[in-house]
Amino acid sequence: MIGMGALFHSTADVLVYEVGPRDGLQNESVFIKTEDKCELVETLSASGLSKVEVTSFVNPRWIPALADASRLLEMLQRQPGTRYGALVPNMKGMERALEFRPDEVAIFMSASETHNKKNINKSHEETFQAFEKVVAKAREEELPVRAYLSTVWGCPYEGDVSLAKTLSLIDKLNQLGCYEISLGDTIGVGDPAHTRRIISEVKAVNGLSNIAMHMHDTRGTALANCLVGLELGVATFDSSIGGLGGCPYAPGASGNLATEDLVYMLERMGVKTGIDLKALVRAGLLAQRLLNRKLPGRALAALAHTYGLVEE
Amino acid sequence: MIGMGALFHSTADVLVYEVGPRDGLQNESVFIKTEDKCELVETLSASGLSKVEVTSFVNPRWIPALADASRLLEMLQRQPGTRYGALVPNMKGMERALEFRPDEVAIFMSASETHNKKNINKSHEETFQAFEKVVAKAREEELPVRAYLSTVWGCPYEGDVSLAKTLSLIDKLNQLGCYEISLGDTIGVGDPAHTRRIISEVKAVNGLSNIAMHMHDTRGTALANCLVGLELGVATFDSSIGGLGGCPYAPGASGNLATEDLVYMLERMGVKTGIDLKALVRAGLLAQRLLNRKLPGRALAALAHTYGLVEE
Repeated sequence: MIGMGALFHSTADVLVYEVGPRDGLQNESVFIKTEDKCELVETLSASGLSKVEVTSFVNPRWIPALADASRLLEMLQRQPGTRYGALVPNMKGMERALEFRPDEVAIFMSASETHNKKNINKSHEETFQAFEKVVAKAREEELPVRAYLSTVWGCPYEGDVSLAKTLSLIDKLNQLGCYEISLGDTIGVGDPAHTRRIISEVKAVNGLSNIAMHMHDTRGTALANCLVGLELGVATFDSSIGGLGGCPYAPGASGNLATEDLVYMLERMGVKTGIDLKALVRAGLLAQRLLNRKLPGRALAALAHTYGLVEE
Repeated sequence: MIGMGALFHSTADVLVYEVGPRDGLQNESVFIKTEDKCELVETLSASGLSKVEVTSFVNPRWIPALADASRLLEMLQRQPGTRYGALVPNMKGMERALEFRPDEVAIFMSASETHNKKNINKSHEETFQAFEKVVAKAREEELPVRAYLSTVWGCPYEGDVSLAKTLSLIDKLNQLGCYEISLGDTIGVGDPAHTRRIISEVKAVNGLSNIAMHMHDTRGTALANCLVGLELGVATFDSSIGGLGGCPYAPGASGNLATEDLVYMLERMGVKTGIDLKALVRAGLLAQRLLNRKLPGRALAALAHTYGLVEE
């Protein structure tokens, strides 16, 4: 299923995968009304983003902020240029997702087994046993499956994570039939030299055509890391509007790379994203209004000023 | 005078030039007490920073936040491993500076003539006429002179700034006898591809041994730009503790690159700075307390958490 994304971003050099409504909001303590989430997702689509992960079919007791996953998918006015994804942590989530059918689904695991156990309460082996059923069901339903492989740059419990382990998990996720594997710097510790080592090795062993980078900006290094990935040939980058979502391991610290920061850098470098930056800034300002706080993205305030948009 | 800095950072691969007490505080609306500024500068020195620009001998009516320049230099407990600089915008400032003698002085101009006129009310020609006297006096006093050349990446009035103009100004500042020229992305518009074009050309024409980069993080690209400069051979980078100082052109936007973000990235890449990151984080937390607000630097909150230091 490699390369399926090409249909959706044929005029872009790089695909920016918006994860704010899912990965951002799941780390926010407030519940955003479903109508408001729909407006946010629709504003994101209108900016030209070709893929938006909108929610997670996780147990609502674990993440109350996303308890309205079904209702959101039902209400959402989908636009033809955008593919809408949802995270499905298990078969139960998969079955719930199928009712209002996202355009693709995603599964999630950690390269660090300790983090995997703490996060989803399974060993790596148990995780793959669960994945097999979910992915088989997705294939039966002709739903593309994206895989998140987190803590590749470091783990809050284990520290360094072995690159050999990462490579072996990439291989297993490929064998499972995932069309893309998004490698995550979950705690935002990565530096450009480390990124070069990781991505060069992944390129040598696996290639990069089915690899995305999901960098967190907790220590300010996300864009520098993306730049290294871009130079090596990575063509899909995850980010979150406004930098939505904090870091669960360091209270008060920022988490996801902000989509405006990423798109600003890429477009000004001459790397086409197919995204209208002004429209994206509108979505960032909307996210800021919905959360009722200044979001951590860097470019938002400056670009709002440039475009004459009012920051409220 | 090229290479004088080597004495001060012989065990470091890269020199981080701390500008927060001057360039940061001059953009803050509150006046920080001189005693508190001294404590901040002393905490910065204690982290291993070999150069700290502590104040500006500008007319206090223009920048009330730095009206205590003389008193600060008088009170400061200087440490042997650190060189303390001060900005001297003109001969009057130079004479005031000489009373309590900083270890080096800095002069300031813009590559964009429009910005230069709006900022210091002089044409380029008038600027060099004034510089000649200031630099002659500094040489007489055996004070090294650093030059800031701002708006190299773009001007809020003119937009793009010609690289030929930048190269010619670098040449003139060299002829004047400045030991180092710090090229600034004053409004934080730079992207890595543009940085590569600028720094490659400066390298070809002038070399990089007397060039520093002074990047603003207004749109999140400062570290990515520094990474490109580092790869090309730039060995001095300016930054501001905590990202102190806003962007005067976009209210609410961030300005200076945060020193902790820069040092975190460099050290984790294996590039030695001679700076103790934990001690630097202490200085960042102190700056945050003095300003009584969360500073924009990314790494501060996460590193404070890592080191078990309390963010107040």
